Amino acid sequence: MLIIGERLSIISKKVREAIQNKDKAPIQQIAAEQWRAGAHMIEANIGPAEEDGEALMEWFVTTIQEAVPLPVSLDTTNPKAMEAGLRVHNNQWGKPLVNSTSLDPERFIMLELAAKYDAPVIALTVGKGGLPRDAEERVEIALKLMEKAAEYGVPMENIYLDPLVMQISGSQNQAKEVLRAIKLFQELNDPPMKTVVGLSNLSNGCPRHLRPLLNRYYLALLMYEGLSAAIVNPEEVREAIKTIDVITGKTLYAHSYLEI
Amino acid sequence: MLIIGERLSIISKKVREAIQNKDKAPIQQIAAEQWRAGAHMIEANIGPAEEDGEALMEWFVTTIQEAVPLPVSLDTTNPKAMEAGLRVHNNQWGKPLVNSTSLDPERFIMLELAAKYDAPVIALTVGKGGLPRDAEERVEIALKLMEKAAEYGVPMENIYLDPLVMQISGSQNQAKEVLRAIKLFQELNDPPMKTVVGLSNLSNGCPRHLRPLLNRYYLALLMYEGLSAAIVNPEEVREAIKTIDVITGKTLYAHSYLEI
Repeated sequence: MLIIGERLSIISKKVREAIQNKDKAPIQQIAAEQWRAGAHMIEANIGPAEEDGEALMEWFVTTIQEAVPLPVSLDTTNPKAMEAGLRVHNNQWGKPLVNSTSLDPERFIMLELAAKYDAPVIALTVGKGGLPRDAEERVEIALKLMEKAAEYGVPMENIYLDPLVMQISGSQNQAKEVLRAIKLFQELNDPPMKTVVGLSNLSNGCPRHLRPLLNRYYLALLMYEGLSAAIVNPEEVREAIKTIDVITGKTLYAHSYLEI
Repeated sequence: MLIIGERLSIISKKVREAIQNKDKAPIQQIAAEQWRAGAHMIEANIGPAEEDGEALMEWFVTTIQEAVPLPVSLDTTNPKAMEAGLRVHNNQWGKPLVNSTSLDPERFIMLELAAKYDAPVIALTVGKGGLPRDAEERVEIALKLMEKAAEYGVPMENIYLDPLVMQISGSQNQAKEVLRAIKLFQELNDPPMKTVVGLSNLSNGCPRHLRPLLNRYYLALLMYEGLSAAIVNPEEVREAIKTIDVITGKTLYAHSYLEI
């Protein structure tokens, strides 16, 4: 499973301040921590970034890739900032990920960019009517997204379908629906469609001591259903991922499996 | 899911010594600890108990039920000891569990006792040729066990099929086979057949710091596949069980769900 480190997000006060001060050190430290904890890719979330989005994304991506030999997941709704990130990204460490497109026509530009730069893209299964109510509605939206991606020349293997993990404190039954969606998404193509989640939204709004527990066990079930990629705090879920990989036979058991 | 506390076993030195000295205190303490940690039933494992098995099981069961208002899982290969346990068991707290029968003709007497006392019984899917190699072989054995149980007048709802959890350090691929068996077993009857595992055998032979991790995540996947009962250390898996129950919607989410 592709582990995408979530911590470099504009939502974090520490990250926001480092960006404002163009201070590389804290950003590179967080990137390195995530790399050491097992991340295969680093999320760079700059939000809408309406002003100076291009310069900001360029600086963020190069700052990260100076510190770690990993590709970057480019998270912004600003198409110009997205393209700036794609342009400056060092593909020596793997392709960047376009985060994200949806059925909102304003987000089709992200499919255009994914096609132009031959980059994988996250497709959110959010419909025109808002958040999906069950797994079947997620599948309907996924099929429309796949059609739209084909129209823009994005090959199926470059799409990561995202079923939208919701807060368990408010939408408890959606946790099961997302698990079912992960299973159903894979059946929409052969070879199976790839899937991704933003894990920690599950426990948003929950007390601090519950969050790692909920995130870890939910990830275990998602992995069991065949999840391809997850945006996570790698330190928090490292043991869970390694243990599930041993139980499901993805990696060989060794007494030292946590350290390998 | 029925949680059966595993700790009162002759394999434990502390328990063995308490039994030898007819010292009730340590046994009642362990029983009470398991009850407080969420056990619904207490396993009383006296092994083969070839000498004085009857008196031993009687003393063990009454000692446990003096301390906690729970039924007991009677674990012995000695049929006289089994019947003594069934006879003395206080059914006010629920029925005792016969642990266990199998396709070994010497173990058919356990089906006879389960029928006579209208007690549930664990049926091990171990074949005449030894340990099962995959989920399908477990299903074949399960069907024969169900036939045999019917012959002895044990109703299907009183059978807990046990797919035999093996050591991951020696038989890694069996972990997946047991998960598949749990799913397949349920499809053998309508209403679904009940299932049980002895969880901690998974991590037998593994370093001490890995055992809880392996046990917890494996139990999470087993519960997700619909496991009905588990013989476990209740303290060790308490948080895992409560968290999976919330994720799968078996219990309502509350900020205090771990304490409830």
